[in-house]
Amino acid sequence: MSSTYGEKLKLSVFGQSHGPAIGMNLDGIPAGLPVDMDELLMFLARRAPGQNAYSTPRREKDHPEFLAGIVNGYTCGAPITAIIRNENTRSADYENLKDCPRPGHADYTAHIKYNGYQDAAGGGHFSGRLTAPICIAGGLCKQWLSQKGIKISAHISVLAGITDDPVALDWVNPDLSKIRSDFPVINPAAGQKMRDAIEQARNDTDSVGGIIECIITGLPVGLGEPMFGGMESKIAQIIYGIPAVKGLDFGSGFSGSYLRGSQNNDAFTIVDGKISTVTNYAGGILGGITNGMPLVFNVAIKPTPSISKPQQSISISQGMEQELVIKGRHDPCIVPRAVPVVEAAAAIAVMDAMLCMN
Amino acid sequence: MSSTYGEKLKLSVFGQSHGPAIGMNLDGIPAGLPVDMDELLMFLARRAPGQNAYSTPRREKDHPEFLAGIVNGYTCGAPITAIIRNENTRSADYENLKDCPRPGHADYTAHIKYNGYQDAAGGGHFSGRLTAPICIAGGLCKQWLSQKGIKISAHISVLAGITDDPVALDWVNPDLSKIRSDFPVINPAAGQKMRDAIEQARNDTDSVGGIIECIITGLPVGLGEPMFGGMESKIAQIIYGIPAVKGLDFGSGFSGSYLRGSQNNDAFTIVDGKISTVTNYAGGILGGITNGMPLVFNVAIKPTPSISKPQQSISISQGMEQELVIKGRHDPCIVPRAVPVVEAAAAIAVMDAMLCMN
Amino acid sequence: MSSTYGEKLKLSVFGQSHGPAIGMNLDGIPAGLPVDMDELLMFLARRAPGQNAYSTPRREKDHPEFLAGIVNGYTCGAPITAIIRNENTRSADYENLKDCPRPGHADYTAHIKYNGYQDAAGGGHFSGRLTAPICIAGGLCKQWLSQKGIKISAHISVLAGITDDPVALDWVNPDLSKIRSDFPVINPAAGQKMRDAIEQARNDTDSVGGIIECIITGLPVGLGEPMFGGMESKIAQIIYGIPAVKGLDFGSGFSGSYLRGSQNNDAFTIVDGKISTVTNYAGGILGGITNGMPLVFNVAIKPTPSISKPQQSISISQGMEQELVIKGRHDPCIVPRAVPVVEAAAAIAVMDAMLCMN
Amino acid sequence: MSSTYGEKLKLSVFGQSHGPAIGMNLDGIPAGLPVDMDELLMFLARRAPGQNAYSTPRREKDHPEFLAGIVNGYTCGAPITAIIRNENTRSADYENLKDCPRPGHADYTAHIKYNGYQDAAGGGHFSGRLTAPICIAGGLCKQWLSQKGIKISAHISVLAGITDDPVALDWVNPDLSKIRSDFPVINPAAGQKMRDAIEQARNDTDSVGGIIECIITGLPVGLGEPMFGGMESKIAQIIYGIPAVKGLDFGSGFSGSYLRGSQNNDAFTIVDGKISTVTNYAGGILGGITNGMPLVFNVAIKPTPSISKPQQSISISQGMEQELVIKGRHDPCIVPRAVPVVEAAAAIAVMDAMLCMN
Repeated sequence: MSSTYGEKLKLSVFGQSHGPAIGMNLDGIPAGLPVDMDELLMFLARRAPGQNAYSTPRREKDHPEFLAGIVNGYTCGAPITAIIRNENTRSADYENLKDCPRPGHADYTAHIKYNGYQDAAGGGHFSGRLTAPICIAGGLCKQWLSQKGIKISAHISVLAGITDDPVALDWVNPDLSKIRSDFPVINPAAGQKMRDAIEQARNDTDSVGGIIECIITGLPVGLGEPMFGGMESKIAQIIYGIPAVKGLDFGSGFSGSYLRGSQNNDAFTIVDGKISTVTNYAGGILGGITNGMPLVFNVAIKPTPSISKPQQSISISQGMEQELVIKGRHDPCIVPRAVPVVEAAAAIAVMDAMLCMN
Repeated sequence: MSSTYGEKLKLSVFGQSHGPAIGMNLDGIPAGLPVDMDELLMFLARRAPGQNAYSTPRREKDHPEFLAGIVNGYTCGAPITAIIRNENTRSADYENLKDCPRPGHADYTAHIKYNGYQDAAGGGHFSGRLTAPICIAGGLCKQWLSQKGIKISAHISVLAGITDDPVALDWVNPDLSKIRSDFPVINPAAGQKMRDAIEQARNDTDSVGGIIECIITGLPVGLGEPMFGGMESKIAQIIYGIPAVKGLDFGSGFSGSYLRGSQNNDAFTIVDGKISTVTNYAGGILGGITNGMPLVFNVAIKPTPSISKPQQSISISQGMEQELVIKGRHDPCIVPRAVPVVEAAAAIAVMDAMLCMN
Repeated sequence: MSSTYGEKLKLSVFGQSHGPAIGMNLDGIPAGLPVDMDELLMFLARRAPGQNAYSTPRREKDHPEFLAGIVNGYTCGAPITAIIRNENTRSADYENLKDCPRPGHADYTAHIKYNGYQDAAGGGHFSGRLTAPICIAGGLCKQWLSQKGIKISAHISVLAGITDDPVALDWVNPDLSKIRSDFPVINPAAGQKMRDAIEQARNDTDSVGGIIECIITGLPVGLGEPMFGGMESKIAQIIYGIPAVKGLDFGSGFSGSYLRGSQNNDAFTIVDGKISTVTNYAGGILGGITNGMPLVFNVAIKPTPSISKPQQSISISQGMEQELVIKGRHDPCIVPRAVPVVEAAAAIAVMDAMLCMN
Repeated sequence: MSSTYGEKLKLSVFGQSHGPAIGMNLDGIPAGLPVDMDELLMFLARRAPGQNAYSTPRREKDHPEFLAGIVNGYTCGAPITAIIRNENTRSADYENLKDCPRPGHADYTAHIKYNGYQDAAGGGHFSGRLTAPICIAGGLCKQWLSQKGIKISAHISVLAGITDDPVALDWVNPDLSKIRSDFPVINPAAGQKMRDAIEQARNDTDSVGGIIECIITGLPVGLGEPMFGGMESKIAQIIYGIPAVKGLDFGSGFSGSYLRGSQNNDAFTIVDGKISTVTNYAGGILGGITNGMPLVFNVAIKPTPSISKPQQSISISQGMEQELVIKGRHDPCIVPRAVPVVEAAAAIAVMDAMLCMN
């Protein structure tokens, strides 16, 4: 297994950045689920580059073509397959990367793993472009989960060290509607500072990273399996499949490890006749299984490794150090575009868990 | 799938805390690997409770009995199965937990998921005791990896907010021998403070958590598969199978998301004719694939949810709030005992990745 | 993966014939299913040797010990693990087999695959004894399926060329009650001839094989997935996991390939307001998916390879031919004992398919 | 899982007969394997309809477009994806099949399984057309195996009851070159009789079935895993994924079950210093593991269910019987076209087993 995820749902992602097409195959979706193609395109647009000042100017249409699995607007039970043609590719920009790997990218590891046969152009199969197929699959799952009352929203909680407002104290009753649609933050002033920091990084031929907080509401109690099949494991496996993700924690997570048990334990209570917890440090998961509270996790995104600044690399063939200047225009920050990808990945994990429940 | 992990290696963990036995089945291990049973017992002893003042006084022998897969001290190619008999169990202590779930435990989620049929005694299949079988499997993998020059060591980097020394700057050349064997820290003074904090928590009928740093050296370049089969995904899936884990990051991880690309990128260099990186913010993984540098990750362990302090819970049957006092003696901190479990889980993930390499 | 089967249900079988124990782990069973231990023991007794004249006199108790997953007579949601201790083993009988492989056994292939580290005693992990754990898992599944109205019965349709009566013409309305409990045939006269043939083979220090027909009634429409997840694929994977199975067909199977479409197609009809087919040449499966008719398949069992007659083998170490005389007493026919194993395997496959249905 | 196969190799097949495209995704192929596209097209041509008198006149180009995984004629390590556009589809022919299912097809079972949302046109995802993607994947695997000296060839051993010559006595030294390329039989006279039988069936508006024998030579010893991971299980799972397959046996298979052990056991011998067997009743597999002898199996193909003769079906909506006449032209025999599909499926199973070997 490699570019395949899931247990009852089987997602396969394929394609290379500069190959003929990228795409995904999603096997295991029940028949009869409606597909709102406009909503999907709007979701995909959130990830697309060139939408605004803070991302790469390379324009991609990124309209998916569905080859299988959907008939007359409904899933037909067969695997769903969609592709996106690659256009406007400029392979020449990447020719030298095969010998001179970019720091922070998979160029070097792919070169060794695939004995030099890897598709180096644009990062090949390791390109961030491969998150578009994840968004197709996840965008569909998001629609279906939404119909069951399960909502998934993410926002930038930190970017270049600038902090957004929290969604809600202890995430017991998060108000997801507070997340803005133009730039995925709650506090517009923080959002403006983040954009400024991105521009500053661009001007400095550098890049910045950040942290995305994702909240899922409306989950039933009992989702997930014990041990390695727990929701944390399921979510982690797919979230770490997103390029540039280097950290993930649930609920109080790393900061919770500084607390005492009496602080970090969520007391049980009854709200409107329903079992609930007073706080939600557990992030909605106990023993790997959802407890009906909002599922909350944070994802650390490293600063974009593609920077225009000269960097120290090597010539693999000559076994010596060599300066590298990456040409072309690159995103100084992928965090805003990664927000829908995190939502998509979460949707796939939750959809799989839903289908696994007896 | 639930209590099963792995791709080429298949680990199944079974048993409930107060059932007849716990154990594990490990399928896919090549034949002819030697087993050093003394070394394994010493490794298991690191996880065992009752070893010293800072853990629970309930004594367990925890000697595994191997039922299959090992003949005359060597693996025979058939699945390896080992069990540990449960002794000294006191199910009566847990009888009321079925109706009155402990905060921070899986009692409530298991109750809903299994319609009241779950084995509630001692947390059943969700008990931390189930980490013993993980240590059997991981202890064996650790031996075999060690013979290939791959070393796995972890230490407590934070406990109750007290910080240990880092293993090495940027983890380029970590000196794992600096980790002490009596208490897994580098700085003995910090270790003493941590022990004091545990004692203090015990006296306060409370508990504390912490962070474990794990370092793996000697890995080949090219381990891991792209996307969802990357080393981060593989390690995350098993690490999150350890009870009480709520966070995980790799290399610079969460703190790296505050840096700029020019800081966080690891420049390539040549050391002794070998391709290396100047720093190791990537934690040894690029594009999900090992780059030959030390693989480094941090695991956040929440404070033990079992505390003696009175807590607010509910009566599930009566639908009303109810105070809960957990009887018996409990670990005020599981972090020290979790250190070998993290090493074991890492060893299993790496062993699986090694077997998956073509 | 090797000794592991299933998708939603995960069966692992472990142990070697002369090791400390054999057993199985069954992960994915819902909580709250009742277990009738007496019924299970009666089912296991059908497979046990030494029950009557036509099988090996080596007595085994084969009483399983349940280590996990069952509490107070009900499944608790955790993996179910059971073991059977090996007793009365006589490893010395098999010492020379490591160098001089038995024709028709896995001795030679295991020797090469495992570089001589295989557990050769009694066939090790390849022994027919490993079908006992399959019967534990399958016996449980059979109970649970029975409660849903799904009945699984098999009989010997051919043994040493002697043919039993068919269960029912075209298997549209099979009367499974006609299968006798003392010897699993319908026609007692045929059964007596089969027993005589077994005795004759024993006297000739030889062995005989046969064909087992298995019929499953009460299945819902819609079980199975398309293509490689079809019921034929699912059943085939587990049935071929039974040692000595060399053939399998469904419905009219091989003989149906001699018919014309107009003969082999099952016309649809309405019986008591329910969609049915007039005949059942399809054996209850269309496109890999159950159609509500009885699921029927045949399993070819080769004659027991263990015979007392002198046979031509080789010395692996000396690279020369060598006569082999297998000592000890051996079953001249395993077909009668394989009948419950086939039922058990079918039950596991159907249970998995049931759990996979959305 | 459904339309997905394999362990180390992951094959996903997607598409419906009359949807935009069909295709396959093959994940897990090592980098650096050369692809001979001409050879692949020639292999696919063997499966294509309309090639000659004995198959359907509907012409399909069936040229695959590779979207990913191959760069400059070599695999690049990323998943390989190829699609075939559907052309010349006539969905109107199938409109009424949604209510009036064709006997012997998946129309009825798909209707129930997918609640009427299935893509009924042309059999949708259950169409024999889906074997084209299997041939793309298998054709590639066949090339790569061939470079390792592993040859896979199949011929029609029985068609409409007419028998071809056997490849070789006991398959110890099969001469695969004797299989003719124009019509896959050894004996041209038998081949002519088979073609006549197909024409006769066509004239009778009926269809015929047959048996395909497949032989694999050059396999190493030790391929396959014990129990459910044995070569028989692996091959069976994929072979039963081919529509119309209803039977499969290995080596002497069903006929071997009529023999005595002394006849069916293959005596070991030394040939040119290499361990071999005198006969090959085992079909090259002992204990699920290859023994280095030719791997031989037979596949029973049912007579094409699509016949022009009036048949008895039902109206699902009206719950009453109804005569059905299937319009359009249909293959009176798919056996010749199934020969390369069987080879392709075998190649995929063997390739996966090769990649799984440590």
